[in-house]
Amino acid sequence: MREGLRATLAVSAGFWCALGEMLRSCAARLRMLGALRKDEHWPARNLGPALRWFSSEKDFCLPNPSWSEDLRHLFHQFMKKCEDGSWTYISEKEMLDLQKKASELSFQNVKPMKKKQFPSTLTRNFQEGLGFEYAMFYNKDERRIVCLFQGGPLLQGFPGLLHGGAIVTMVDYSISILSTKTIGFTMTAYINITYKRPIPIGSVVVINGQVDKIEERKVFLSSSVHSADEKTLYSEATSLFVQLNLEKSET
Amino acid sequence: MREGLRATLAVSAGFWCALGEMLRSCAARLRMLGALRKDEHWPARNLGPALRWFSSEKDFCLPNPSWSEDLRHLFHQFMKKCEDGSWTYISEKEMLDLQKKASELSFQNVKPMKKKQFPSTLTRNFQEGLGFEYAMFYNKDERRIVCLFQGGPLLQGFPGLLHGGAIVTMVDYSISILSTKTIGFTMTAYINITYKRPIPIGSVVVINGQVDKIEERKVFLSSSVHSADEKTLYSEATSLFVQLNLEKSET
Repeated sequence: MREGLRATLAVSAGFWCALGEMLRSCAARLRMLGALRKDEHWPARNLGPALRWFSSEKDFCLPNPSWSEDLRHLFHQFMKKCEDGSWTYISEKEMLDLQKKASELSFQNVKPMKKKQFPSTLTRNFQEGLGFEYAMFYNKDERRIVCLFQGGPLLQGFPGLLHGGAIVTMVDYSISILSTKTIGFTMTAYINITYKRPIPIGSVVVINGQVDKIEERKVFLSSSVHSADEKTLYSEATSLFVQLNLEKSET
Repeated sequence: MREGLRATLAVSAGFWCALGEMLRSCAARLRMLGALRKDEHWPARNLGPALRWFSSEKDFCLPNPSWSEDLRHLFHQFMKKCEDGSWTYISEKEMLDLQKKASELSFQNVKPMKKKQFPSTLTRNFQEGLGFEYAMFYNKDERRIVCLFQGGPLLQGFPGLLHGGAIVTMVDYSISILSTKTIGFTMTAYINITYKRPIPIGSVVVINGQVDKIEERKVFLSSSVHSADEKTLYSEATSLFVQLNLEKSET
């Protein structure tokens, strides 16, 4: 019996060793994967997952740890403005619902994507703090939209500065939501953007968009990009969006 | 002894079960992580590393497995045009050298980035095939640039279509290289882009840029985005770039 117990313990010890070794190996691998995801202030060596996928579970428009004080402050200021109903906060869900509805659009020559192959829109395909961090507020009576935007290091153009393409992407997205909320689904026909000053990476800007004129299916909009304190004008844009016929859109 | 053996076997069986369970759990987790990294035609569930960092070792402008037949074909066509010296291939190294030189620019209010915290430009911050795949060719005599561009699924706007912001980003980058090669470092002053038809994700387009006029430090350029077979015009743009004074640039 003692022999048996000894044998049991010997075998057990062997199992524990093997188990320990395997778990250590697993843990090391998981730690490595974890390390790849670790954020520093500028996660410069972060080669980890930078994608965020289509998910209606989380509202990415709400504050997260990557948001600066300026962005938080502005966000709470606008949330207060929502209390009397003049402004409305646009949640991620609302944006995703628009995106989902847009997937009903049928364009010639465009192979529809399978649902499980459905990434989010460009502005949501970066990890927290590395790409586009933003929240939007809509004023129905004034036909205005405000987008609070903080651009991360992966949106770089010249070293230390936001890429002009990232700025126009955010402007285009904000006013496309405004025009869609104003007259239904629209697409950009043109956008004329002027860059007055470069925007440092990580700084918070306020994009103001407004409807200037509606002509049947056309919406003319203008927009500006200011610093958080409104003292610096970074960019201005004028644009035309055209309402889509959801039944038969053609490319 | 038989009891002992039975006990041993019972305990061993317990260990095997526990070990099996744990390994299965580990394996499931690793499989999940693996699956997340697995590429399909559209690597829709790929949550893996989507960043590519500043590196002069690899020429990302050369063909890689994500390139479609169309893109390869056009690339080789233009490489042939380079043989008589009329066209020049612009390597990643040349673009990076411009980027490095740009880091000498000093803007007010822009905190310089530490070298190890230096991500690449927006267009290179996506994993192979998921974002911007492109190669550029320059014609000095004709003051023209051609950018062969294939946009991946992370650049999505409307489902299945490239985001307008991604298109203008690539146009802006192409003509900024043209204007910089023409008169030295420049920055975008304005860009007016018209979208004629949406571009399906994954399709190859040809961006043609040309210098229309130079007035002292100003370069006026025009550009177009066509399908690979040149039959479809997707976008047109006019723009102004202004030469920078490298000694004292101010934001």
